[in-house]
Amino acid sequence: MADNFSCLDNMIMVLVDPSHYGNIGSAARAMKTMGLSDLRVVTTKECIVNDDSLALSKGAADILKNARVFATLDEALEDITLVAGTSARMRSIELPLYQPREAAEKILPHIANNMKCAILFGRERTGLTNEELQRCDIHINIDANPEYSSLNLAMSVQVLSYELRQAVLRASELPLVKNDYDDGLRKPKHSDLEQFYGFIEQNLKDCGFLKENHNGSVMGQIRRVYAKSDMSAHELRIIYGTLASMLKHRH
Amino acid sequence: MADNFSCLDNMIMVLVDPSHYGNIGSAARAMKTMGLSDLRVVTTKECIVNDDSLALSKGAADILKNARVFATLDEALEDITLVAGTSARMRSIELPLYQPREAAEKILPHIANNMKCAILFGRERTGLTNEELQRCDIHINIDANPEYSSLNLAMSVQVLSYELRQAVLRASELPLVKNDYDDGLRKPKHSDLEQFYGFIEQNLKDCGFLKENHNGSVMGQIRRVYAKSDMSAHELRIIYGTLASMLKHRH
Repeated sequence: MADNFSCLDNMIMVLVDPSHYGNIGSAARAMKTMGLSDLRVVTTKECIVNDDSLALSKGAADILKNARVFATLDEALEDITLVAGTSARMRSIELPLYQPREAAEKILPHIANNMKCAILFGRERTGLTNEELQRCDIHINIDANPEYSSLNLAMSVQVLSYELRQAVLRASELPLVKNDYDDGLRKPKHSDLEQFYGFIEQNLKDCGFLKENHNGSVMGQIRRVYAKSDMSAHELRIIYGTLASMLKHRH
Repeated sequence: MADNFSCLDNMIMVLVDPSHYGNIGSAARAMKTMGLSDLRVVTTKECIVNDDSLALSKGAADILKNARVFATLDEALEDITLVAGTSARMRSIELPLYQPREAAEKILPHIANNMKCAILFGRERTGLTNEELQRCDIHINIDANPEYSSLNLAMSVQVLSYELRQAVLRASELPLVKNDYDDGLRKPKHSDLEQFYGFIEQNLKDCGFLKENHNGSVMGQIRRVYAKSDMSAHELRIIYGTLASMLKHRH
């Protein structure tokens, strides 16, 4: 059992631009109760450890103090292979939308095979931006009361952490099959995917298809196509490699 | 869908002797986000609405202000037919122990058929007493990190409220079968069960089996037997009635 739960070490919770220090501390506590430990915060705050965050972290001050702070989301996700974004509302971008339990079951085989997965939690008032949601492979919606859907940030972290632990608990009844994850199933690194998208975008600009100040909807639709295809690392290499080859040949 | 979620009106969350006003407000908010509205608090506090609880209730001030306050647990549970108790630890009393999702699925048919069900949440530091847990028909454990299992009180309310909403959501995919709940399945009222147990206890004292200051283990075992049997109201009437008849005949 203890061995199975250790896969939660590969699970990263990312708070994107949180306003309240107290919520960062509460999120750390919520994570630790469920056996998660890797907290990352994308913020312009100089330090996330203060009286407010420490008070609410309670017995999880270690999680809070070890939390890493990043200036940009891309840096926070550099070593991540699967990125999930929480979204209160239905967005225009139609990525696969999962309830927390389905999402946890989708994530479990990745973390059980030592790949790092992240769940992004947006700002208290406004959530994740469309651009941030476009960075995600899957979207998670916690179904809520349409008349009052405002879950506290740390409450959302608790619910997702809970579902991840529950997924491990259920899988523990049948031992997780490990090490049968061949290259055909391995997910690409987030940074590889972003490099791919950046490559496409640059080429679209170079050819004049995209204006400098375009609104992003074209790239959004491209990202959606690939996100829904749920590419393996191997498939990305093929897609990216063939595209690059074709472009190179054209010149 | 909206119609299905209305069964959550029959779901009561009971905070037993909470220390912190802020937790009462946070619990109200957690409930409202998931569509629950009936909060009850067993407490010696004169009023649960103050600056701390109001601030944390955010948009759920209505739930907080409408919350009913009781001096004793029995009064809070008077109209309840199924009582579930949250328990962090394995207790000596071996009632059925469910994870939150299983518990929600067990509770759903009751609330969908207009019976009132309650989940009890204990004190921040010490949880529910053994005596309070003995009042329960089922026990719920939120599986947690054995090295740090201290979920915030309102976080526990959030997880259980979430699972109840998820249970309705899943059931909404297949319409809930309503009104097929005959008397053979109807649960007894909590107060009827307590009257039954009180009747047994008084008779055990009268006959000298129980000393005045007994430690409760005998009654605990009796309660366990009946709790595991999951009696219907009809069955309770038979058990109670036959017992009473036998005792009456004895004199």
